[in-house]
Amino acid sequence: MEIKNYKKDFDYSYTLGAFPTFELLDARPDIVEEVVCSASFTDMDKLEKRCLEKNIRLTVNDKLINKLSDKGNVFVTGIFKKYIQELDNKRPHLVLVNPSDMGNLGTIIRTAAGFGFFDICIVEPAADVFNPKTVRASMGSLFRLRHKKFSSFEEYMAYAGERDIFTFMLNGEKPLTVNDCPKPELFSLVFGNEATGLPDKFLKYGTSIIIPQTEYVDSLNLTIAAGIGMFMFSNEK
Amino acid sequence: MEIKNYKKDFDYSYTLGAFPTFELLDARPDIVEEVVCSASFTDMDKLEKRCLEKNIRLTVNDKLINKLSDKGNVFVTGIFKKYIQELDNKRPHLVLVNPSDMGNLGTIIRTAAGFGFFDICIVEPAADVFNPKTVRASMGSLFRLRHKKFSSFEEYMAYAGERDIFTFMLNGEKPLTVNDCPKPELFSLVFGNEATGLPDKFLKYGTSIIIPQTEYVDSLNLTIAAGIGMFMFSNEK
Repeated sequence: MEIKNYKKDFDYSYTLGAFPTFELLDARPDIVEEVVCSASFTDMDKLEKRCLEKNIRLTVNDKLINKLSDKGNVFVTGIFKKYIQELDNKRPHLVLVNPSDMGNLGTIIRTAAGFGFFDICIVEPAADVFNPKTVRASMGSLFRLRHKKFSSFEEYMAYAGERDIFTFMLNGEKPLTVNDCPKPELFSLVFGNEATGLPDKFLKYGTSIIIPQTEYVDSLNLTIAAGIGMFMFSNEK
Repeated sequence: MEIKNYKKDFDYSYTLGAFPTFELLDARPDIVEEVVCSASFTDMDKLEKRCLEKNIRLTVNDKLINKLSDKGNVFVTGIFKKYIQELDNKRPHLVLVNPSDMGNLGTIIRTAAGFGFFDICIVEPAADVFNPKTVRASMGSLFRLRHKKFSSFEEYMAYAGERDIFTFMLNGEKPLTVNDCPKPELFSLVFGNEATGLPDKFLKYGTSIIIPQTEYVDSLNLTIAAGIGMFMFSNEK
């Protein structure tokens, strides 16, 4: 199989760098096609051992590494088959409506794994969750959680079953504060696009939340708003 | 005055883009040398009005705009003199020890302005706060707050006066939770470098804080940790 520079319509993708590759090998060895590394990779013993344990082919191929790594500074890649998952509807969901930046999407996925949100809904159009840039920004956390794409929020609502919905909006009705954070049993946190946020029609779903902020910014960065939302709602009840 | 592509030792810098330029004009007209825009800038009336009000020279110069804007998509720039400020020691401080990424630094500054942290200490070596990339990532919030550089944390401590110090560390002693967030009167929140965090010697200053997280990430992203810390400590008492 000849590995090419990633395109969205491929049925495979790859990790760039040691950290996400080890995460891939640990979390999802079942989807790994092969691992490729540079002759100058410094942690070869650990990598060989892990690949041997998981019965995964490891080859040295500097030419391929150079081709796949756009910025350099990459010494190992794991080629993996893309996959489709179902979400766990007994768990809290993080819902991202039209996230457009791969770095943000990856960072949010990493934060979700950090705060125990293991079910991510992505409403399209959206940045490609399997793009190596997204996977890299997630530090491989993508493989630790479930994600599923939906073509509309309505489609997600029909899928997700009975739960409390919290939409994060600049014109939200309920300020989120340390002294007044909802403590729902089963819920979804919903965030909009980086530039435009959630459209007003989202005011009609569940409870709209605003993170209080001064007049000196037009909005918080999406990754930070999502981080604060997940931190607050994941906290001990 | 011939404007060149920014270097750290210049005594001037510039904003890239309309949003940070308007922030500069609104918050710090006193430091603006001139505003330069492209003939294709679409909000010319507003810009002309603002420059006229503030008695600032506005020139059209597409060649200069193209030269300064590395990624394109920039139609206006404000040239400004760099400045040195003192912090307000009666206010909470955000202390960044060796932040290395200009995008992160700018994003943290924007978040600080959003949560009412108007005094930022930067312990060097650190990313250049006046680099146009930092200013752009801050969305011009840099001009809304005070910042001061220190060559060591000890120097900052001698400067900052009596206050409660909270260091954010992966081996911090006190977990930060919604039900147990300190409510100090006057305080500083201290964050380390993106890759290395705060060294262990910071355990001896004040209270060390950990943001609880799962085993599935090695750490939170710095900007998100700082966002959560500022949100929690700025919240209504």
